[in-house]
Amino acid sequence: MTIYNAPVRDIQFILHDVLDISGQDLPGYEDLDREFTDAILEAAGKVASDVLAPLNAVGDQQGCRLENGVVRTPDGFKAAFDQVREGGWTAIDCDPEYGGQGMPYVIGLSVGELMTASNMAFTMYQGLTHGAYSAIHAHGTDGQKATYLPKMVSCEWTGTMNLTEPHAGTDLGMLRTRAEPQDDGSYLITGQKIFISAGDHDMSENVIHLVLAKAPGGGEGTKGISLFIVPKYLVTEDGTPGERNKLSVGNLEHKMGIHGNSTCVMNYDGAKGWLLGDLHKGMRAMFTMMNEARIGVGLQGYAVADAAYQNAAAYARERLQGRAITGDANPSGPADPLIVHPDIRRNLMDQKSFLEGARALATWCAHLIDRSHLANDAEAEGLVSLLTPVVKGFLTDKGFETAVLAQQVFGGHGYIEEQGMSQFVRDIRITMTYEGANGVQALDLVGRKLAAEGGKPMMRFFDLVKHEIKTHETDEELRAGFLEPLKTASKDLQAAVMFFMEQGMKNPNTALAGSYDFMHLFGHVALGLMWTRMAAAARSALTEGAEDRDFFQSKLATGRYYMARQLPMTATHLARIRSGAEPVMALAENQF
Amino acid sequence: MTIYNAPVRDIQFILHDVLDISGQDLPGYEDLDREFTDAILEAAGKVASDVLAPLNAVGDQQGCRLENGVVRTPDGFKAAFDQVREGGWTAIDCDPEYGGQGMPYVIGLSVGELMTASNMAFTMYQGLTHGAYSAIHAHGTDGQKATYLPKMVSCEWTGTMNLTEPHAGTDLGMLRTRAEPQDDGSYLITGQKIFISAGDHDMSENVIHLVLAKAPGGGEGTKGISLFIVPKYLVTEDGTPGERNKLSVGNLEHKMGIHGNSTCVMNYDGAKGWLLGDLHKGMRAMFTMMNEARIGVGLQGYAVADAAYQNAAAYARERLQGRAITGDANPSGPADPLIVHPDIRRNLMDQKSFLEGARALATWCAHLIDRSHLANDAEAEGLVSLLTPVVKGFLTDKGFETAVLAQQVFGGHGYIEEQGMSQFVRDIRITMTYEGANGVQALDLVGRKLAAEGGKPMMRFFDLVKHEIKTHETDEELRAGFLEPLKTASKDLQAAVMFFMEQGMKNPNTALAGSYDFMHLFGHVALGLMWTRMAAAARSALTEGAEDRDFFQSKLATGRYYMARQLPMTATHLARIRSGAEPVMALAENQF
Repeated sequence: MTIYNAPVRDIQFILHDVLDISGQDLPGYEDLDREFTDAILEAAGKVASDVLAPLNAVGDQQGCRLENGVVRTPDGFKAAFDQVREGGWTAIDCDPEYGGQGMPYVIGLSVGELMTASNMAFTMYQGLTHGAYSAIHAHGTDGQKATYLPKMVSCEWTGTMNLTEPHAGTDLGMLRTRAEPQDDGSYLITGQKIFISAGDHDMSENVIHLVLAKAPGGGEGTKGISLFIVPKYLVTEDGTPGERNKLSVGNLEHKMGIHGNSTCVMNYDGAKGWLLGDLHKGMRAMFTMMNEARIGVGLQGYAVADAAYQNAAAYARERLQGRAITGDANPSGPADPLIVHPDIRRNLMDQKSFLEGARALATWCAHLIDRSHLANDAEAEGLVSLLTPVVKGFLTDKGFETAVLAQQVFGGHGYIEEQGMSQFVRDIRITMTYEGANGVQALDLVGRKLAAEGGKPMMRFFDLVKHEIKTHETDEELRAGFLEPLKTASKDLQAAVMFFMEQGMKNPNTALAGSYDFMHLFGHVALGLMWTRMAAAARSALTEGAEDRDFFQSKLATGRYYMARQLPMTATHLARIRSGAEPVMALAENQF
Repeated sequence: MTIYNAPVRDIQFILHDVLDISGQDLPGYEDLDREFTDAILEAAGKVASDVLAPLNAVGDQQGCRLENGVVRTPDGFKAAFDQVREGGWTAIDCDPEYGGQGMPYVIGLSVGELMTASNMAFTMYQGLTHGAYSAIHAHGTDGQKATYLPKMVSCEWTGTMNLTEPHAGTDLGMLRTRAEPQDDGSYLITGQKIFISAGDHDMSENVIHLVLAKAPGGGEGTKGISLFIVPKYLVTEDGTPGERNKLSVGNLEHKMGIHGNSTCVMNYDGAKGWLLGDLHKGMRAMFTMMNEARIGVGLQGYAVADAAYQNAAAYARERLQGRAITGDANPSGPADPLIVHPDIRRNLMDQKSFLEGARALATWCAHLIDRSHLANDAEAEGLVSLLTPVVKGFLTDKGFETAVLAQQVFGGHGYIEEQGMSQFVRDIRITMTYEGANGVQALDLVGRKLAAEGGKPMMRFFDLVKHEIKTHETDEELRAGFLEPLKTASKDLQAAVMFFMEQGMKNPNTALAGSYDFMHLFGHVALGLMWTRMAAAARSALTEGAEDRDFFQSKLATGRYYMARQLPMTATHLARIRSGAEPVMALAENQF
């Protein structure tokens, strides 16, 4: 049985000490004082620890079952879903016009971390619904919004995103699902979709599928794609679910993890659907939600890893094995706790220093999304657009590594399913793959985002780094531990950008061959920036005589670890990037 | 359904072009010409591909079952085990006096790779038997050898190693299993052991357990430990299994992977056992087999990863998705194969360049073990003793990473169990943990091996590197691509050794805090040395007009990739090591 404690103190530190959210001039932010966010996070943490965490192993062991065409979720899921719904947790950052609580996304993200960490497979039902809600909210007609949104805000109806087909994953241009226009303005949707998370289940009255399909006249490739609303039950005039639509679950996938979430093969056999947004502009409609969805996956990366870390730290404190080399730490016991051993510390510090940096980065990005949405801040939008593939790719790669580190602390016991550490590793593995595999994130970063707006967002990021260094340059303690390493790492990132600019014109493969390393290089610098900000905030708090000195001192020590032991990776990433395309592309296909 | 093709060509290259085994003056090596080893490897590869590989998924899906105290293996395992046994594959490098084929270990290792890659869980039954065989062969009385070895060589009886107890994993000094001496010279063994691989099953007539236990009078900690032979069925005078011994399977563990191998909780309730080797010298008896056992686990790391790689490469050639940025590679098809994309190449090259280097390193170590055993070469023994934790720790960490990379090539399909890629990842995960967790390997390396014999083996390794660089310094093509990077990386390794020497005296935690990075730093330099040797061998073959130019050219290109893109990691590892113990040990236990 695993434990989970909501990291409320740490989130509060980021929201208030680092981002000063209640001091920001943004609509909806004025209510976000320490007391208010503390109450929200404590209450959400209680649901996470008491209701969702105990169901995490149940979901893994039982999985979902397909019975006579209907998906049954694991024992206890439905009751828990009702509880989450009734507590209003599905509506946090939704539009009050449709029953939402209207809080900023930065709060939605923070609450989302706790729910995800305690039970990722469970929380995905709500997460997918939120994605579909956002799409309808952004692109739906007034009628569509009135019909679907209130029920989706409350999760009485849940939502899905139907993109992938057996032969078309990353390459959506090849998809074959067809939409035939009908005289009444609706379409008949025919085709097969795979990997549909939360595709069907027994926890809601209706499932609202958003389906990418090709309608006549749109041309080849992604240009011909439109997005359709295809409900499981057609909605009657009085707004309740009526006739069953012509769609069915073809199969449930057997996956490495997230067994508690139903991953469906969906068959559409002339199912009735309605165009969402403009005809043949389905890809654009999808992409408007992409930043939020991808940051949501980055969140899964550190959230699940944090749950794994908490268990590893607890085990390292409790498990007695061996003696400290510097003298017995537990002389009255048969052995010392694992945590006395330097290599166990190295393991735990790798985890902790990543997790706290990741949380800060994702929360900052959520705040940038708020700036972009609530204040039409184009600069914030450009920056978060640039950072999104980094958050998705880097945080999930490192989140997975972190979960593996946590599992390793348990030795052989970590390999036994009942211990729960294997589930964290198996669950988190998918975050590197779905919502755009991490290689695709790297391609998006280097191939599109880096050059967007003539490179302005990238320059803006470098300015922020420079500003941070300049602001604190007289602080002796920050200089050696934070500012110098950040400067070095940032120079590596600049050198990589320069290299791509110089070489990319000659051979486009050069930038692509270095794209994955660039994503990680960027990720390290971004976390270095976050740690510098956090260290500065901790220094201020200590200087101002904050009571919780232990917390701020541990924050500084954890940050120093990241800067000293993780940030040097930037040099290796730069060296790889500079080796160019030749080593990567040298072999003929038959030589693999 | 996964594929597996024995990499015979590559193993032959290492055995003959790189190690020139038939030119070595060692007993048993005189027969090992190209033709002979080719015949052996082709035949073993056929068993691996045709018999074992098809059972790999079966073993994963069915797992083992405990029925009325007896473990049932998955369908087809017993018939396959008979086939392996009848083919003589269990006896390859065993002593002819007991029915073995008497081949050197270097051949045993090469054959072992093929069996392990095609079905790791299955091959462990034989691997554990081989470990127990080696222990009895090294420490048994003539009577014990005559009683047990012939049956174990043929695997009519299989063997196990019983070390771990619930509260004693790495720290064996705490174990509680007791051995009470009896008047007839035997002992009664009482206690519980966990994580006993191949602890019981239905494929052999008897199971010979080797059990660590405390006999009276041995003192505290590991000093009081002895090793005992405890057969499942007591052997009668005519050498056949007779009365059932007082031991039983308490439970079968539910594991993340290797489901086809029975991992047992073993209960000994006054079971009859016989001392193996000297009283109270059980740890020493265990450790004599440790090098071989740990290199065997390192082998599992690259063997399973190679199977994963082969499937990823095949998928990347077949799966059509997206278009090459440099122009359509498959203009008549709907899309280009994945393999045109630079980041897919980067992924595959990371795998391939690691795997081939790992195979060379492990094979070289097997050869060093042969030198040590067959020619009493103390220098070889010292060197392989130093390299063993590197082979175990580095190759399994990187093997796991490689399997994850291979899974990633499949996108979402890699997460679906039926595809088989998840099994590779789940199976290989245990190699980082058992036979001494990799953190313990790092501790062994830095805490014991580095200073062994006054540091002579470490100096010997540096001499080998220098010699390699000097030998080829006039070869222009090798210089830039191989010799220079190897020199740089080797200097990083030397700097790390110097740092430990200078700092280790002041604070023992300094070396331990850097031990894991040191193991990886060493691993990279060792693979750099292997790649330089392989590149030199490939250059010679090309110069001498070898027919198979494609093979040797791809070898050079793959090596250049490793040197350019993997070896730069040494700088990061050195930077981490030099950051010392302070960042690692800064937090109080309650701050985690």
